[in-house]
Amino acid sequence: MRALLLVAHGSRRMESNQEVRELTERLRARAGGRFDWVGHAFLELAEPSIPEAVSAATAAGARQVLLLPYFLSAGRHVVKDIPDEVATALREHPEVSVQVAPYLGAMAGVSDLLLDTALSQSAQAG
Amino acid sequence: MRALLLVAHGSRRMESNQEVRELTERLRARAGGRFDWVGHAFLELAEPSIPEAVSAATAAGARQVLLLPYFLSAGRHVVKDIPDEVATALREHPEVSVQVAPYLGAMAGVSDLLLDTALSQSAQAG
Repeated sequence: MRALLLVAHGSRRMESNQEVRELTERLRARAGGRFDWVGHAFLELAEPSIPEAVSAATAAGARQVLLLPYFLSAGRHVVKDIPDEVATALREHPEVSVQVAPYLGAMAGVSDLLLDTALSQSAQAG
Repeated sequence: MRALLLVAHGSRRMESNQEVRELTERLRARAGGRFDWVGHAFLELAEPSIPEAVSAATAAGARQVLLLPYFLSAGRHVVKDIPDEVATALREHPEVSVQVAPYLGAMAGVSDLLLDTALSQSAQAG
């Protein structure tokens, strides 16, 4: 069973955390069964943490968890904090395999998404 | 003449600012003449600022500038700082029209980009 876990920084602004939850809902709707469980986690300032989310996915039957880091650059959060949290989760759930995808800013399609949006906006502006 | 301006927060980490410059290069290469000028700007901690970048685009002949906010959520930077900087740029260059696209986290295609990346990663993992 495969799980998809969107990992965001977390914010003091409740609205920003809510944006992450709504994005997770969209991912879940679009996953269409290609992932059996879709959830989110935060590094700071909001819950659940990565280990808490991995526990929830495991309790739901997941044995493979793919993390999608919702970050723009390879700062400390991506390079150190996420791997540290993954290590904690794996100590608690050695039966699970965890994989970490490229962070959003490093995803190959991000420049196409930006350019497509720009062209669409320009077309609307006439 | 149309200009495209990627706007990022800016970081103390030089590597993060360099990621933005490299993304701008990719946008420029892919724009393929659909924008006559493609550049970047930072809100803080790095240069150029939005008014500086709008000045550069204007000097190059641009009369329409589309800003692409490279931000994940509608926090203060998106809601207040970018509009404030745009207002400053417009006071300096009233001959230019400036439009602000949705920020990255609000772009319609971001969930597809995340899901496509997740599926591609899962396929690689087998």
